[in-house]
Amino acid sequence: MSSLKGKVLVAQGGGPTAVINQSVVGVALEARKFAQVTSVYGAVHGVRGIVNEDFVDLTRETSHNLECVADTPSSALLSTRDKPDEEYCARMFKVMQAHDVRYFFYVGGNDSSDTVRIVNEQARAANYELRAIHIPKTIDNDLMENDHCPGFPSAAKFVAQAFMGVNLDNRALTGVYIGVIMGRHAGFLTAASALAAKHVDDGPHLIYVPERAFDTAKFLTDVDRVVSRYGLCTIAVSEGISDASGTPMISKLMQTEERDDHGNIQLSGTGALGDLLADTIRRELKLKRVRADTLGYLQRCFMGCRSDRDAQEAREAGEKAVQFAMWDNVDGSVAIRRPVLDYCVDYELVPLQNVAGKTRHMPDHFLNAEGNGVTADFLNYCRPLLGSGVPEPHRLRAPGVPKILNA
Amino acid sequence: MSSLKGKVLVAQGGGPTAVINQSVVGVALEARKFAQVTSVYGAVHGVRGIVNEDFVDLTRETSHNLECVADTPSSALLSTRDKPDEEYCARMFKVMQAHDVRYFFYVGGNDSSDTVRIVNEQARAANYELRAIHIPKTIDNDLMENDHCPGFPSAAKFVAQAFMGVNLDNRALTGVYIGVIMGRHAGFLTAASALAAKHVDDGPHLIYVPERAFDTAKFLTDVDRVVSRYGLCTIAVSEGISDASGTPMISKLMQTEERDDHGNIQLSGTGALGDLLADTIRRELKLKRVRADTLGYLQRCFMGCRSDRDAQEAREAGEKAVQFAMWDNVDGSVAIRRPVLDYCVDYELVPLQNVAGKTRHMPDHFLNAEGNGVTADFLNYCRPLLGSGVPEPHRLRAPGVPKILNA
Repeated sequence: MSSLKGKVLVAQGGGPTAVINQSVVGVALEARKFAQVTSVYGAVHGVRGIVNEDFVDLTRETSHNLECVADTPSSALLSTRDKPDEEYCARMFKVMQAHDVRYFFYVGGNDSSDTVRIVNEQARAANYELRAIHIPKTIDNDLMENDHCPGFPSAAKFVAQAFMGVNLDNRALTGVYIGVIMGRHAGFLTAASALAAKHVDDGPHLIYVPERAFDTAKFLTDVDRVVSRYGLCTIAVSEGISDASGTPMISKLMQTEERDDHGNIQLSGTGALGDLLADTIRRELKLKRVRADTLGYLQRCFMGCRSDRDAQEAREAGEKAVQFAMWDNVDGSVAIRRPVLDYCVDYELVPLQNVAGKTRHMPDHFLNAEGNGVTADFLNYCRPLLGSGVPEPHRLRAPGVPKILNA
Repeated sequence: MSSLKGKVLVAQGGGPTAVINQSVVGVALEARKFAQVTSVYGAVHGVRGIVNEDFVDLTRETSHNLECVADTPSSALLSTRDKPDEEYCARMFKVMQAHDVRYFFYVGGNDSSDTVRIVNEQARAANYELRAIHIPKTIDNDLMENDHCPGFPSAAKFVAQAFMGVNLDNRALTGVYIGVIMGRHAGFLTAASALAAKHVDDGPHLIYVPERAFDTAKFLTDVDRVVSRYGLCTIAVSEGISDASGTPMISKLMQTEERDDHGNIQLSGTGALGDLLADTIRRELKLKRVRADTLGYLQRCFMGCRSDRDAQEAREAGEKAVQFAMWDNVDGSVAIRRPVLDYCVDYELVPLQNVAGKTRHMPDHFLNAEGNGVTADFLNYCRPLLGSGVPEPHRLRAPGVPKILNA
């Protein structure tokens, strides 16, 4: 048990998810139980709020409102894309010292994990006692050491339900449909579209992820084959698909590239990739009805489509983070393990450097040999994550009627 | 009471909705109760299925599966964009005669209503007894005589919930967000985004619909003002916005225009309009983080986001259609009325020509004087349609903490 008396500081970084507030509320409610915790602060806009000393006092928040916020998507403490270097972290550390922060919890992806690692090292170097724990979240599902990451299951549920609707829609008015899904380097979320298929001819018929080089000629052959077979084709594509040389397909089209502070090309918030692919199909395959949707920001924060399992796990990840800090007096990154395929989870604390700045990709056995679909292994991996209440599409099974005029 | 013995034929036309199957199931289950109905046929792919004699026998479908299908979005009988002329309708009428169809129900928009009108006139001219009834559906909500149309409330719920998430997301990582919403001539669905606002600074801050001429300079002034005030801006735009001369904004951009069989420019299934508007804001206002999503096909068939009120009314509209035909022995279009604002509905049968081929627009008192938002009248009109279980976004209300270093 840690006897360290002082404040808890919790913050949220990077893109929001449907359940990221569960983790903050898990931290706040659990931390408030420990006598050595003098207050629970939340940093506004992530690490930026820390350097700016922009804190709110979560000890003075009602439990009821915390529960309401836990059920609300996106980062209630607001977020930031700032990626702190050593100097930035030194300023954060100074503020933490000034406020007697002794427990730091940062909910975020692999960049956030790296921030926790740097702050943790600076505290150690300064001989300042600070527990620093990273709590995982990302809809990309690309954190090392984790079976899956909080936020991914809810986004996966959204994508699966979106493609269920798309299957039904594209069957009613047939054509080629392309849905572009978030995921710069990892295709997990795009692959989750596969859970939409219930009937043998249901889509997505083709799935392209960043883990496999995208080849336009092969793509057209694939589409042509599916259209010949079913008279329609439904396609799921990651925004991050790249050709064999690693050039993102989107940068082959975009005239003005918007780059974020990390120097990454903007992939989300534009329909350009979908439109490029649709134009290619129209032009090369001479198909008439070709539609592209970019699922966009709805994927991560749509209200009313959340995996209950995801919400529970995100809450537990926050609670466990506090328990690791308090009972075990250790630093690290909370990781979700799955000892049994279908289905239970364990939480472990792993070294920060195992997660920090690293990206996990889809393992080979989740992707088919052709590079245009997923395997049963992936379906078995992903299905339980969606939790309860996943809707099911139904079709008429009424028998046909003999023709009279055209008999 | 109609004593006309013969078959019932039901079909679905145009774009699918989340509840269009409720109407078909309402027809099928109600029609099966009447002794003079020898069978209930469904036409596959709408009017195209009628000329092709492509029917299924819904009398041989289980009630359980009909209920499952009713709960499934999109057109279970499949749909068509065919817009029959006199000659096409004559072929349909011939098939109906051959199969002894005496009751024809067509679920669709204003084009479908026109089809029912033509077939009805041809039957009358041929002295063939045929009850012909149009059942309304459209996410655009643009049918005359109706307070609102089945399909719209569920799509409105999707749009409102999407913008709730967008509000939360855009608050966490601030910027300008544009959401492009379906609606060629009527702005009802775009306007429904206004129901997302709960807090005083919530978006959408600006709403542009086809009923008001779109002016790019005015648009930029609006965005600039909102960004100055809130540091962010969330915008809802109809795909069909046009300039003062009536030219769709999208056709100012598109290089290759795709036109449908009715000669309309393709507005859906492309991110072009959103990207054009985002580029304009980036270029003219020198803003960095500008994102555009096109909500696309998810709006009409997303699984798991349905207004229960909408589902009930779509079912009733189908049931009532059969009751009008059987008990009153009349033809026409089923129309939903609202005698009390908050909230009950009545169903009336109105003359087909009142609905056929006509478009209803948003009334003036639903739109603000500036042409960039909606009025309280619209909110009061739209809110009850969303039914029960609409999620609510919550924010932290924890007090701020005094600064120490930057005091």
